Amino acid sequence: MGKARWIWYPGDFEIWIGNRFNNRRTERGAMFPPFWKQDSHWPTVVFATTVKLEEPETVTIVSEGRFSLAVDGALQTHFDIPAGEHRLSVKVWNQVSPPTILVSGKTVNSDSTWLVTYEDKIWIDETGQAHGSGIYVPAASWWFDSPATPPSHYRLPTTPMRPVSREFISAGKTLYDFGRETFGYLHFKGLHGPGGFSIYYGESREEALDAKHCETLDTLQPCGKAEGKVASKAMRYVCVERSGRADFDELTLDHEYAPFDKGRSGSFSCNDDELNDIWKVSAYTLELTTREFFCDGIKRDRWVWSGDAIQSYLMNYYLHFDTECVKRTVRLLRGKDPVTAHVNTIMDYTFYWFISIADYYLYTGDTAFVSEMWPKMVTLMDYVLSRTNGNGMADGKPDDWIFVDWVDFPMHKRGSLSFEQILFWKALKTMAHFSVGCGSAAAHLPDYDSLADHIRQKTNGSLWNPDQHTYLHAIEDGTLNRQVTKFPNIFAILYDFVDEEEKPLIAEHVLLNPTVPPITTPYMRFYELEALCTMDMQTEVLRQMKNYWGGMLRLGATTFWEKYNPEEKGTEQLAMYGRPYGKSLCHSWGASPIYIIGKHFLGVRPTKPGYSEYEVRPSLGGLQWMKGDVPTPYGLIHVEMTAEEVRVKSDGGQGTLVVDGEKTALPPEELVVVRRECH
Amino acid sequence: MGKARWIWYPGDFEIWIGNRFNNRRTERGAMFPPFWKQDSHWPTVVFATTVKLEEPETVTIVSEGRFSLAVDGALQTHFDIPAGEHRLSVKVWNQVSPPTILVSGKTVNSDSTWLVTYEDKIWIDETGQAHGSGIYVPAASWWFDSPATPPSHYRLPTTPMRPVSREFISAGKTLYDFGRETFGYLHFKGLHGPGGFSIYYGESREEALDAKHCETLDTLQPCGKAEGKVASKAMRYVCVERSGRADFDELTLDHEYAPFDKGRSGSFSCNDDELNDIWKVSAYTLELTTREFFCDGIKRDRWVWSGDAIQSYLMNYYLHFDTECVKRTVRLLRGKDPVTAHVNTIMDYTFYWFISIADYYLYTGDTAFVSEMWPKMVTLMDYVLSRTNGNGMADGKPDDWIFVDWVDFPMHKRGSLSFEQILFWKALKTMAHFSVGCGSAAAHLPDYDSLADHIRQKTNGSLWNPDQHTYLHAIEDGTLNRQVTKFPNIFAILYDFVDEEEKPLIAEHVLLNPTVPPITTPYMRFYELEALCTMDMQTEVLRQMKNYWGGMLRLGATTFWEKYNPEEKGTEQLAMYGRPYGKSLCHSWGASPIYIIGKHFLGVRPTKPGYSEYEVRPSLGGLQWMKGDVPTPYGLIHVEMTAEEVRVKSDGGQGTLVVDGEKTALPPEELVVVRRECH
Repeated sequence: MGKARWIWYPGDFEIWIGNRFNNRRTERGAMFPPFWKQDSHWPTVVFATTVKLEEPETVTIVSEGRFSLAVDGALQTHFDIPAGEHRLSVKVWNQVSPPTILVSGKTVNSDSTWLVTYEDKIWIDETGQAHGSGIYVPAASWWFDSPATPPSHYRLPTTPMRPVSREFISAGKTLYDFGRETFGYLHFKGLHGPGGFSIYYGESREEALDAKHCETLDTLQPCGKAEGKVASKAMRYVCVERSGRADFDELTLDHEYAPFDKGRSGSFSCNDDELNDIWKVSAYTLELTTREFFCDGIKRDRWVWSGDAIQSYLMNYYLHFDTECVKRTVRLLRGKDPVTAHVNTIMDYTFYWFISIADYYLYTGDTAFVSEMWPKMVTLMDYVLSRTNGNGMADGKPDDWIFVDWVDFPMHKRGSLSFEQILFWKALKTMAHFSVGCGSAAAHLPDYDSLADHIRQKTNGSLWNPDQHTYLHAIEDGTLNRQVTKFPNIFAILYDFVDEEEKPLIAEHVLLNPTVPPITTPYMRFYELEALCTMDMQTEVLRQMKNYWGGMLRLGATTFWEKYNPEEKGTEQLAMYGRPYGKSLCHSWGASPIYIIGKHFLGVRPTKPGYSEYEVRPSLGGLQWMKGDVPTPYGLIHVEMTAEEVRVKSDGGQGTLVVDGEKTALPPEELVVVRRECH
Repeated sequence: MGKARWIWYPGDFEIWIGNRFNNRRTERGAMFPPFWKQDSHWPTVVFATTVKLEEPETVTIVSEGRFSLAVDGALQTHFDIPAGEHRLSVKVWNQVSPPTILVSGKTVNSDSTWLVTYEDKIWIDETGQAHGSGIYVPAASWWFDSPATPPSHYRLPTTPMRPVSREFISAGKTLYDFGRETFGYLHFKGLHGPGGFSIYYGESREEALDAKHCETLDTLQPCGKAEGKVASKAMRYVCVERSGRADFDELTLDHEYAPFDKGRSGSFSCNDDELNDIWKVSAYTLELTTREFFCDGIKRDRWVWSGDAIQSYLMNYYLHFDTECVKRTVRLLRGKDPVTAHVNTIMDYTFYWFISIADYYLYTGDTAFVSEMWPKMVTLMDYVLSRTNGNGMADGKPDDWIFVDWVDFPMHKRGSLSFEQILFWKALKTMAHFSVGCGSAAAHLPDYDSLADHIRQKTNGSLWNPDQHTYLHAIEDGTLNRQVTKFPNIFAILYDFVDEEEKPLIAEHVLLNPTVPPITTPYMRFYELEALCTMDMQTEVLRQMKNYWGGMLRLGATTFWEKYNPEEKGTEQLAMYGRPYGKSLCHSWGASPIYIIGKHFLGVRPTKPGYSEYEVRPSLGGLQWMKGDVPTPYGLIHVEMTAEEVRVKSDGGQGTLVVDGEKTALPPEELVVVRRECH
């Protein structure tokens, strides 16, 4: 064993901190928890290990929760371990936060080699012999390694930040502007005088000035204290209104952020300043929405949503490669058994959850995490399979939310949607893929591959229009709904649900067809642009990115939005859900250019798990030059490209550079330069 | 709505307080939680109701946890409900203890007419309309009705108690005797002087004086305080050893007890003083083991065990009729889904759990509780059915504990035990019985009746020896184990697994056969004596009771024991589990004479749920006279019997008195006297 670490039951840290995270949402002062099931950590767990000591050793045990130590099954009151081979087990009970321990001794230290169970299942046989038959799994740990850093004390770091301007609106009412979207705890210094403060937040100036309709607000009653902080909020602007003679000397923000390793982060620059800005604002958007978990947006929901998260993960693989945050988010989204609803109650979000694990594995090669999640993948898929219709297709039950996307046109969401079947198929393929490696339990599992084939066959048989090269919308009550939307057709391309030769025809008939309603969320634009990139349409994608994301920048965006419809005018752009400031202006799914640029312009992607093998297939898409870095488990892959040459250097993994159809090997840590014929 | 009550998600109070209860066990100072899964309450729940107000009303909401109120789906910051019909919902989050609320207004008050869910599952359809599709169940409540009595503050009451004697053992070492077994918190008054105290508890004098081997102990460091209390413990004796110059003026006990309604309690007296003592000591034993839950014994485990509990319930129906404690115990034993192990990890204990609900329903007629438990009955039976062997029989899997009983003779517990099959059959019959009334879900359920018939057929076909009128022990690895034990044969009689005419033959060949090993625990004697009573062998049962329970009294018992083998001598009687004081001397299953006397001597039993109809079939079993009361939902049934006459008066229900084969109607609240021919 190495250095002592705090250890806990895998997933329990996330479930516990996740409840705090999701329940921080407020709507005009009222607490607003999610409407899906919130789970709890196991209140009582047993940590166990076997040690072989050359000499007796006294260990120190620090815990969160009450605990007892047993050596070879016998309860101890002193922590002296005799020499020889012994089974140590520490049982900990904590209702308030996950039971955790930090065991440290000369050689005995707690870490992820320890096992843990929520049920040790001791039983006594007919001879009086005690047996333990609990299911033990590897204990979880992170960087927490001292008595001063128990896991439940974990908080994101903060740094002070000052407003860039303030504006006196009227008597006792001041508007502060932090210059761009930000997040943190307002910090009032030098409070004095009787009375209090009303605080109105705005992602826009209009919102902060609209006390009646702004989405978030606070009050502060100093009660004689010289300093005051309020709960964390998103804002660019904040309007503070004094009541009585209350006042303060200075207002700052404790900006809260997720730390990252700058030396191992993605980067991008090119000759096009607008695209550079798009990349930078995307990166900032993703940084703000990367917190204890990847959340949707920082102002309104602040919740962890699976459909949003799968995109954040993918962007993150091209920005900070924060794998811990991916794992935390995947664990929280899944929660605990029994499964009583789809992930976030949304059927598509269940499917994304499966697919995100396949993505995670491809980018990281982390088999331990897949093994940890596998039993929960099985029980979630059991839930899905228990709810299919007579044809085996994934229809929404009356209590399922079928989301697909926010759309401005009428679209029924009941029956067998082709969109849902394609995601279901991909989820089944993910199960089939991992079921090969995930051990003996597989013998009792459904044949996921056959189920997937069945879904493809049924979908192609009933929802595919070969003349129009189009997946039609749905079968509802036995009737084919012939509506054409981009959604299923995008995913048919992306997930290889159709043959290669069919893809350009689908693109032509649907994706690039102006009579098909356009997508108005960056959420689905993510997939749309990627689908086009897979067909080498980077020039078209660049045009669309500059148009769409550039459009938000031209309207003054400092982070990218939940939804953007270029047709809307003025403050219409702020409204959503029937509320004047309902729209989130810092939404993770707005940050997709990071992913599109990293994967399809710089052209870097793993071809074997964890970048042990990878491909660099750069594409200027009309740019004169570009350069950038993509993070990998080995460090970075640096790519530079002009019309004349491509230069690549990676910190590890076996790469293949594909330029103008020519392949060149990319050995680790070696600069490879490929000269191009004039293009 | 009536008076405002605190409300919570059903079962969560029990699960939360149950963890505290079960985790109070210590072994010589070390915490000793159970080795089965401990669950948590739902941390976030939504309480909802619909109100119709003639005028606007402001409500007060007190909660355990952070909460928000929504009226017709809109979050509120003030609690003014407008006139008209409105849907109120209160979402509460509490990680530490169950989320609870007390809502009070002029007409709007929280109570069990409110509904509650752990998942409100709001979803938004294609028109932007929000829908809620969570599964709501009736909220739970109890007597907690004021802001000063939130459910998490619940504690049993205490009353001061003084030792009856003290004895100076040696310098600084004093032994206190409370005169009989008791339970509570030692309370040191007038503490003074530097130093501290070591405290050794004993159910026997020997145990309290044996600092090295007593089962429970404490230390007290006054640290300058004038009073000190230690954690609750069981004891008759306590030995206090001073260190340094520490001393105190007085030692008392805060005796902790479960309150009960004396005016609605069972009673018994007769001409036989020994039997009167047996009844009284049984009652006291059950009172001590009736706490927040029915526990096994108060000294050692202090845990809630299903096999022990089902007997406590039955005794309780003849003593204090504390139905709340029955419900609490049933809920805690079941815990939450998913089912990952048998109840207490013991297969027989799972079966008893089902059967205890049938008993509860018969004695109380409480359909609401059966409805509450039904979904959990279904999922627990699903678990059982998922683990049967190829023949559909309930074999123990390697990780199941097969308990049956503590026995002093060799007895294999693997394979298909006839004992387990008979319990399984009875559990299936319970499921079949309730599945008729428990609603539409029943359509998707297994056919429990057919499964039960199948088990009976298989058991009779392979484990019944018609020549010996005996169920043989087991089939193990395809081989019949021909061992004969009383266990399956007792239950075959009790549960009507065999025909009436077979019962006396089984009794003769097994129960009364001196070559079959005797039962040495009051646990199985409970069933053995009841089986004999069902065959009108009260005279024999009285002889055995006086012999067995009287035997413990003659050894000085002030409460009845976990195990009693008349063959053992002196301090051998204190030992168990290889420990000199391992045996519990106050064990609930020792109190069975209450049940045997109430049901089979006074002869009172419900024949329709909740005593709406009942039978009184008194039997003197050789006594000259007896009289007593049996509690029912209506009040009491009073029975007096001599050789000459029987007198019965009940507070409600339609009774039938059966004396010497003659039936007489027992109308409510009417004294009925039946004169007997000389017997």
